[in-house]
Amino acid sequence: MSRKPIIGVMGPGDEANPELMRLAEELGRQIARAGWITLSGGRKSGVMDAVNRGAKSAGGLTVGILPTSERDKISTYVDIPIVTDMGNARNNINVLSSDVVIACGIGRGTASEVALALKSNKRVVLLAASEAAEAFFKEIGGALISVADSPLAAIKLCEEFLRAP
Amino acid sequence: MSRKPIIGVMGPGDEANPELMRLAEELGRQIARAGWITLSGGRKSGVMDAVNRGAKSAGGLTVGILPTSERDKISTYVDIPIVTDMGNARNNINVLSSDVVIACGIGRGTASEVALALKSNKRVVLLAASEAAEAFFKEIGGALISVADSPLAAIKLCEEFLRAP
Amino acid sequence: MSRKPIIGVMGPGDEANPELMRLAEELGRQIARAGWITLSGGRKSGVMDAVNRGAKSAGGLTVGILPTSERDKISTYVDIPIVTDMGNARNNINVLSSDVVIACGIGRGTASEVALALKSNKRVVLLAASEAAEAFFKEIGGALISVADSPLAAIKLCEEFLRAP
Amino acid sequence: MSRKPIIGVMGPGDEANPELMRLAEELGRQIARAGWITLSGGRKSGVMDAVNRGAKSAGGLTVGILPTSERDKISTYVDIPIVTDMGNARNNINVLSSDVVIACGIGRGTASEVALALKSNKRVVLLAASEAAEAFFKEIGGALISVADSPLAAIKLCEEFLRAP
Repeated sequence: MSRKPIIGVMGPGDEANPELMRLAEELGRQIARAGWITLSGGRKSGVMDAVNRGAKSAGGLTVGILPTSERDKISTYVDIPIVTDMGNARNNINVLSSDVVIACGIGRGTASEVALALKSNKRVVLLAASEAAEAFFKEIGGALISVADSPLAAIKLCEEFLRAP
Repeated sequence: MSRKPIIGVMGPGDEANPELMRLAEELGRQIARAGWITLSGGRKSGVMDAVNRGAKSAGGLTVGILPTSERDKISTYVDIPIVTDMGNARNNINVLSSDVVIACGIGRGTASEVALALKSNKRVVLLAASEAAEAFFKEIGGALISVADSPLAAIKLCEEFLRAP
Repeated sequence: MSRKPIIGVMGPGDEANPELMRLAEELGRQIARAGWITLSGGRKSGVMDAVNRGAKSAGGLTVGILPTSERDKISTYVDIPIVTDMGNARNNINVLSSDVVIACGIGRGTASEVALALKSNKRVVLLAASEAAEAFFKEIGGALISVADSPLAAIKLCEEFLRAP
Repeated sequence: MSRKPIIGVMGPGDEANPELMRLAEELGRQIARAGWITLSGGRKSGVMDAVNRGAKSAGGLTVGILPTSERDKISTYVDIPIVTDMGNARNNINVLSSDVVIACGIGRGTASEVALALKSNKRVVLLAASEAAEAFFKEIGGALISVADSPLAAIKLCEEFLRAP
């Protein structure tokens, strides 16, 4: 059996701005079109909600790794909610379960996910990160860090990394 | 959107006997036929492997919540591996993510899952449990515990619980 | 350096009756007198609170492994609160961090802790458990399970297990 | 009862250089002299080992939050090993259990701890961080981030934060 690749998309929740939401939705759409599974933090908020909405609009499968057991906070667009009830410690599960991690914007939680991904030697694609974020994560992540300037560029990088992990 | 129900099937790994494996495989088949998602501990061992094999033989979708990050220990029949790397603490995620929990046999890990499910007020169906297990879990679980004498009876109970949670 | 032994005392929270609280307090006192560290689930409730009160009354050191980050729910008698914010998944940390586990009474959470302790091959002493609990845990735990009929008897068993783990 | 403050010291393991080890050892010594408890990742490696050695040399109490259950990897200088067996997800416990977090150097794991601390609105003191790390963490952490140029300066900041959290 060959499993479908799982692309983890991490990003700010409530503090995500409309542009970030647009990027996340486009990422979800493209991940679904590529035939991949979308994994996120699963909440009905910000990048998490938008990436799942995009993925479902293109018929994709969506997995959400939830920090709490509050069922009303799950994104409507998550097919498979995994309820951890372990707060931000679930961020490590997000990245360990992803074949490639895309950070769409950078909040405090996202920063922890990028760092945890690097700690486990996972490839990370930064999209819409600040200059300071790019500089810092390149410093500690070296070749594991790539920067994309559009959702499409991020998807191309994923394709490349999935071919040669 | 209405999500597909997730049925968690828990049971012994390496120490599962052939009869338990047969029951687990049949459970997986029936869960898939009912249109539900199969969730398990995800390892290539015992009840976990058998339930996923059964589910895939009937075209179902399978989610495995893995205790370690060793990818070669994932059941071949798991579509979506969630890598927790948190050992037996992941047992709590297994039950929190399941709409109904079926215990197929009882090992030490399974016993922890039944107890954790009860602690979170989840319905548990016992299949092929010992008399001592049934007596104990009824004592601490009351009406949350049901006993099934066949995979089909377990599935009927799940149907009932999904209609009136 | 030789570390002080850590004795984990698990038991019901809000549903603990006065007799169970009395036993827990006595356990804490004896653990402290033996020069050992008391570890518990850390909350200001039931067996957790009583065992820490007992330990502090005899000048012992107390560690509490908290399920949430709500600081006002920590037992007043905990010296070192470890804040996990991971709900009942923290039960696995309770037992892994203990040299010997004493279950003082049996609730749903306690049952998960006994099962998780056995899964990790830890010695468990049952105090004030029901007949059904003793029968079940002996069935799955074999020689790892001991039954004590008093706090003093539980302490004697700990001494024995610490000498020959 | 008034609890002793817990200062979490995070930093690189095997990749820590001698200068970072010296700083960590000095931090541990000063934390102990201030009458506080030292909390770390607990392993017999790098900053974790050095800070505990320093704390013990000044008669302090040391708590280590271990990522695995391998007992031979615990720092000799840890009084209270908390065994999580949950890999890097334990990093969240490190910061939630600390009243103030000091990052001594910055590796990938440390970066995740700083980000998780900020996510939970904890004060973080950076010692011996790179310019890129300081710039990034100030950007996402604002007033929660302080920079110290010596162990003594870090301790002064802790004193201040403990007085007015």
